[in-house]
Amino acid sequence: MFVHDLPTPALVIDADVFEANLAAMAAARPGSSLRPHVKAHKCTALALRQAAHGHHTFTCATPHEALGLAAVGLGADLLIANEVVDPRRLEALGALDDDVMITVAIDSEATIEAAARAGLRHCVVDVDVGLPRCGCGPEDAGRLADTARSRGLAVRGVMGYEGHLMMAEDRAKQREQVESAMALLRAAHDDVGGDVISAGGTGTYDLHDRTGVTEVQAGSYALMDTAYGTLGLPFGQAVCVVGTVLAVKPGYAVADVGLKALGMDHGNPSIDGARVWFCSDEHVTFAVGDAADGAPSRPEVGGRVRVLPAHVDPTMALHEVAWLTRGDEVLERWPIDLRGWG
Amino acid sequence: MFVHDLPTPALVIDADVFEANLAAMAAARPGSSLRPHVKAHKCTALALRQAAHGHHTFTCATPHEALGLAAVGLGADLLIANEVVDPRRLEALGALDDDVMITVAIDSEATIEAAARAGLRHCVVDVDVGLPRCGCGPEDAGRLADTARSRGLAVRGVMGYEGHLMMAEDRAKQREQVESAMALLRAAHDDVGGDVISAGGTGTYDLHDRTGVTEVQAGSYALMDTAYGTLGLPFGQAVCVVGTVLAVKPGYAVADVGLKALGMDHGNPSIDGARVWFCSDEHVTFAVGDAADGAPSRPEVGGRVRVLPAHVDPTMALHEVAWLTRGDEVLERWPIDLRGWG
Repeated sequence: MFVHDLPTPALVIDADVFEANLAAMAAARPGSSLRPHVKAHKCTALALRQAAHGHHTFTCATPHEALGLAAVGLGADLLIANEVVDPRRLEALGALDDDVMITVAIDSEATIEAAARAGLRHCVVDVDVGLPRCGCGPEDAGRLADTARSRGLAVRGVMGYEGHLMMAEDRAKQREQVESAMALLRAAHDDVGGDVISAGGTGTYDLHDRTGVTEVQAGSYALMDTAYGTLGLPFGQAVCVVGTVLAVKPGYAVADVGLKALGMDHGNPSIDGARVWFCSDEHVTFAVGDAADGAPSRPEVGGRVRVLPAHVDPTMALHEVAWLTRGDEVLERWPIDLRGWG
Repeated sequence: MFVHDLPTPALVIDADVFEANLAAMAAARPGSSLRPHVKAHKCTALALRQAAHGHHTFTCATPHEALGLAAVGLGADLLIANEVVDPRRLEALGALDDDVMITVAIDSEATIEAAARAGLRHCVVDVDVGLPRCGCGPEDAGRLADTARSRGLAVRGVMGYEGHLMMAEDRAKQREQVESAMALLRAAHDDVGGDVISAGGTGTYDLHDRTGVTEVQAGSYALMDTAYGTLGLPFGQAVCVVGTVLAVKPGYAVADVGLKALGMDHGNPSIDGARVWFCSDEHVTFAVGDAADGAPSRPEVGGRVRVLPAHVDPTMALHEVAWLTRGDEVLERWPIDLRGWG
């Protein structure tokens, strides 16, 4: 099968760019120094490739992601890097086989209580390092660790996501800010103990050599998006949504890749050599210039166009399947099997 | 079952507001003067309720939506209000039983050729009335109709979506602009013939009394969103995403409704009585003021919060199921069975 045979919109992964991304990250952060975050792709087939590059610990955003990884044999050490208070979801995790290890984030008495009641056995203390989201104050971490231990939970350490520092133009300043944020996390870790200091993401994966962090939770590096693409990281754009051109008008064209095929919170997608005007539910309208303007050859109705998402994570959540490709050849069909919440 | 028992994020529909919306629209545009657009909800159970209000013709954005409606007996008169050039998708439509009628939009020789080759029998000429998307120039409509007839297609009339005029602050000016756009559509219809002049949406459903349009393609009116909610239409906000509060901090709180549960192209969602700061993949962070500021009572970890989407259509596409509710009671479970592309 070939890319031009795929029904569109089609989520297409370039196998060579993808493999190069995995190799580059595995060289920089080998083995368990990277805990790949599956929220960025929601695909067990892709996680198995990350495992083939030596990473056997994974980060999850949802219990559903953890259950899915466990089902394909990737459950040796799963961190749900979010608080969970739903008793049924926690109980499903607590009921997993003994060869699966689930560690959940806690940041309050209520989240400790929920995890303990559901029979979970491992946690990390989630520490607020500057992103206004979950995480306790660093000064509360030791007390919460004691509470968790008193409720029978093994406290493996701390995590703190510096999500507010992922995108930065000034790399030196970004490093300084990351190091300040991680000083808060280390201070919390002094009070908590344990082997794990977990933090980071694709935007900061290479800024943790002096932070004391034991593992980085990057995910977007595998497929990338145009937002991360602006940072000059050594990872290439491996994913696009292939569309079919439906109309060609004076000055613009329309393809069948719209709001229901693209995460839009980072703005419009991009098309190489063209300027995207806007997206509708099922369409992208893009300006087509003259060849003299550097634009690609004029599209034709029925032709294909590659649309690059601005934000990969929510884009993946809109598709049932991704196609692994090399050139025009389709190599594999990968279900996006971790989407939804179960 | 009750709303507080649902796993979150949970897409929740208020049955009374929803039924009132359907009744209000059926009173304004009864029977076939409304062709409800299912792209706004992607749910056959919801379409069956629209049929119960007297609407037996439907608008679809994708072949997958049309096949799904046909499968539940709602295929008597389905308009795919978009161009389709994928031969397999068209052939699946052409192979439907004789009691299903599919009409597809065409706007070029290539789209006519694709429909004719696949054995489709009915089309409308899609006319550009000002939205830079698909649709032929009004002056080309008659010629394309002739071409379509020569290829064996029955030409039922014209459609023209004034999508650029859905949101307007000045209602009188909006009416004027809609009437100008529809004058283009009527002129095209003069050259095309047929019984159908199809246009409109929720934002203009009541501006077509003098336009000559025979049917309006509104969809968002059934569930609504905060963008349409600004227009003062007689339709209430019937859908929200219920989340669980995961963290309460000084000045703000966090719930488990994020980018993967919300269409974000119209911006952040809303929470009554609170101010939304930002969304992450699985979280919404929102400011919580003092009771003196009119904010709701301080949320508690494990409590529930109702998050109102800014754009309903792509929000629906992110959920597997919607829950029909009255007060705290869950009445029905509705699969969002028309999402994806098949």
